[in-house]
Amino acid sequence: MKSIFNIEKIILLLFLSVLGIACQKEIDKKEAHQPKEHQAFPYKMPTEKPNFPLSASAERMFDYPAPRVQDNELFSQFKYTRLKGFDYNNGDGTITRRDPTRPIKVGDTYYLWYTKRHTKVPPIGWNNAAKATDEIPSTDWDLAEVWYATSKDGFTWEEKGVAIKRPEKPKSGWRSVCTPEILVWKGKYYLYYQAFDEPSGLKGDLCPVSISYAESPEGPWIHGGDAVIPFGKEGEWDHKATHDPYPIVHNGKIYVYYKSAYNKWPDNRKNYAVGHGLAIAEDPLGPYTKHPLNPVMTSGHETTYFPYKEGIAAIIYKDGNERETVQYAPDGVNFKVMSKISLVPIAAGPYTPDAFTNTKDGRGITWGISHFINAGKNGGRHSIIARFDCDLSLDYNEPGFKQSGVWHKPAVYFAQGLGKLRSHPEGR
Amino acid sequence: MKSIFNIEKIILLLFLSVLGIACQKEIDKKEAHQPKEHQAFPYKMPTEKPNFPLSASAERMFDYPAPRVQDNELFSQFKYTRLKGFDYNNGDGTITRRDPTRPIKVGDTYYLWYTKRHTKVPPIGWNNAAKATDEIPSTDWDLAEVWYATSKDGFTWEEKGVAIKRPEKPKSGWRSVCTPEILVWKGKYYLYYQAFDEPSGLKGDLCPVSISYAESPEGPWIHGGDAVIPFGKEGEWDHKATHDPYPIVHNGKIYVYYKSAYNKWPDNRKNYAVGHGLAIAEDPLGPYTKHPLNPVMTSGHETTYFPYKEGIAAIIYKDGNERETVQYAPDGVNFKVMSKISLVPIAAGPYTPDAFTNTKDGRGITWGISHFINAGKNGGRHSIIARFDCDLSLDYNEPGFKQSGVWHKPAVYFAQGLGKLRSHPEGR
Repeated sequence: MKSIFNIEKIILLLFLSVLGIACQKEIDKKEAHQPKEHQAFPYKMPTEKPNFPLSASAERMFDYPAPRVQDNELFSQFKYTRLKGFDYNNGDGTITRRDPTRPIKVGDTYYLWYTKRHTKVPPIGWNNAAKATDEIPSTDWDLAEVWYATSKDGFTWEEKGVAIKRPEKPKSGWRSVCTPEILVWKGKYYLYYQAFDEPSGLKGDLCPVSISYAESPEGPWIHGGDAVIPFGKEGEWDHKATHDPYPIVHNGKIYVYYKSAYNKWPDNRKNYAVGHGLAIAEDPLGPYTKHPLNPVMTSGHETTYFPYKEGIAAIIYKDGNERETVQYAPDGVNFKVMSKISLVPIAAGPYTPDAFTNTKDGRGITWGISHFINAGKNGGRHSIIARFDCDLSLDYNEPGFKQSGVWHKPAVYFAQGLGKLRSHPEGR
Repeated sequence: MKSIFNIEKIILLLFLSVLGIACQKEIDKKEAHQPKEHQAFPYKMPTEKPNFPLSASAERMFDYPAPRVQDNELFSQFKYTRLKGFDYNNGDGTITRRDPTRPIKVGDTYYLWYTKRHTKVPPIGWNNAAKATDEIPSTDWDLAEVWYATSKDGFTWEEKGVAIKRPEKPKSGWRSVCTPEILVWKGKYYLYYQAFDEPSGLKGDLCPVSISYAESPEGPWIHGGDAVIPFGKEGEWDHKATHDPYPIVHNGKIYVYYKSAYNKWPDNRKNYAVGHGLAIAEDPLGPYTKHPLNPVMTSGHETTYFPYKEGIAAIIYKDGNERETVQYAPDGVNFKVMSKISLVPIAAGPYTPDAFTNTKDGRGITWGISHFINAGKNGGRHSIIARFDCDLSLDYNEPGFKQSGVWHKPAVYFAQGLGKLRSHPEGR
């Protein structure tokens, strides 16, 4: 029995050791979160998380790209410049340009695509969609087409003409083609866009994603497919819409981020939520496989994505608890908040030289084109496109973009007035 | 040996069981984070976190007060109204009103205190502090005093006169008394304020916190003490300043939140960071004990605190990675981000009926007074106070404050122009 006893003893000691190591690790973990003797936070900002007890807020400071926002590569202010070269019929609402793509540079020329509507009258509005005709648009993006322009400096543009025309009825998009985004893949150019078969607003924004491709950014564009990003199954979050397709080349594949409003009809429209899914394909024309963790982003409306380091960064505009943030996902799927931003560019298309290079070292962005949807005068509703500049780049460092406050004249605040909310119950 | 062998065997089995349980727990933990069979996120917003794999963003949605921002009690837009009853000498920079306290209601009357400067000339600026005289102010808050006004409705105010005068030289505050905050404690009124003994800017913003008290909100005010919130020791984050004292009655004690800029001098001023500490006392006049986890807040400049549920909520304006957020700490110490906000009221003093009631059921806020520091015309720098309204209240629900976007005219964006940043290196 002696030898067996000894073997059992050895096994016993072995298990005791393993258990001991496991327990010690557990104790270490706990001690790391227990207040030790008091040590005051220093006047000089530490570069790494100090090894003494911190408040929750001080702990988090070191989870961001830098403890000081001024040093945070994924924080920026945004500066805006009016573009030269686009006519809007004196702002009467009959011409709109909106939803710009990312500009791409081919040779020494930037190319830009966008939704253009040029109608005899301004839109009559979403709620009047039933009264829309072949000449009267319901929304700002009804009866629209995809146009393009070129520029040498990104400030002054020359409109070149239509890229994607509305096809003959009843082909998909006969009513309106809009909200383009560009992909460059294996030497070819692909435009993704939304194709309407009825005035927007009639049954919501029902507009599957179509795709066309060309050998040159100047076209001609060949129809490549309709409804390439399939809707979800009945009852799934994205079963009524796949909007705003946003392709990036990542992990050797085509990652298309897309938006879907959910929790909307048939309930009150105000109960909507906006989510963003990811669909992946090996060829631009599909088939696309949706990521099982969709929605990968639960804040943001029009959302902007760009390669950053080994993953994907995103600029989140309005909607959701994490509205007005920059986020980052090393895997392109699991995004975390990196900064909180102000005056976020709307429907932003940043110049992103590495959007299609399958990079694992994304360098970020410094400028792009966005839109304003409320540019009209005297109720003539239309949109304009504009340039934004920023410093969300690893290669550019401009303190002018890193200030943590935005100064508006008081009139900007007073313009956000109480209006009819002025009459409040006593005791509010 | 047999009996011993059996005991060892039992011990061995016992340890194996313990280890087995420990391991199983570890496996359970891991499985909870492993994708199980695919289940799609539903079209109808779940009220609780679904029990299937989610993206990081979708997980976080359920960590906020509500998954939809529109339902988030700690999210609000802010609406602004110009106050009636205050004269500013036609905006020539000689009169300033800033840093309002929270208004308090006594009987049917709201009382408000604020920094008032009325000088012969506008301030000559921080960088010219050496040229300041007894009649020429350096900064907007130099040569100032604490004044007060009353109102029946919070919109129209009547200025009543000075509350805290500058004392005779060399008493603390002889140069300027400013940035007041109010506390009501055991039937008495206490004003906390900053006391300058030299023109602001000469050696920074060196201004310890003084305190005065009165039996009535109309005074007379009796000097209660100077430097009541002590500076930190040399090398500690708050060793050069304790600014913006903000008292709340919590846990039966007086919680004073205060601001300190650190990481600043002697390095570049632009390298500053802003932290917020908590000092606790059993009597308004002190002594104050600083919380060992200070700074309890590492974003925000002027920061606003109010009782909320069992803890304290905060409105974070500019500065820090968590600029422009609402945060909440059930213990008043460990704050977490509850929402991302826009056009945040500056130096906000919200009407907070339960600020001094030692509540464990804080109800939130719906309006208050804030300031704008850039109200002057033609370079005459001065500040104005204004009213803000919001819905950060558990008792008030106004969808008009819960919209997730803010619409500005494009001119508001273009006013944030590139300026001299226009000339960028090629390839940026």
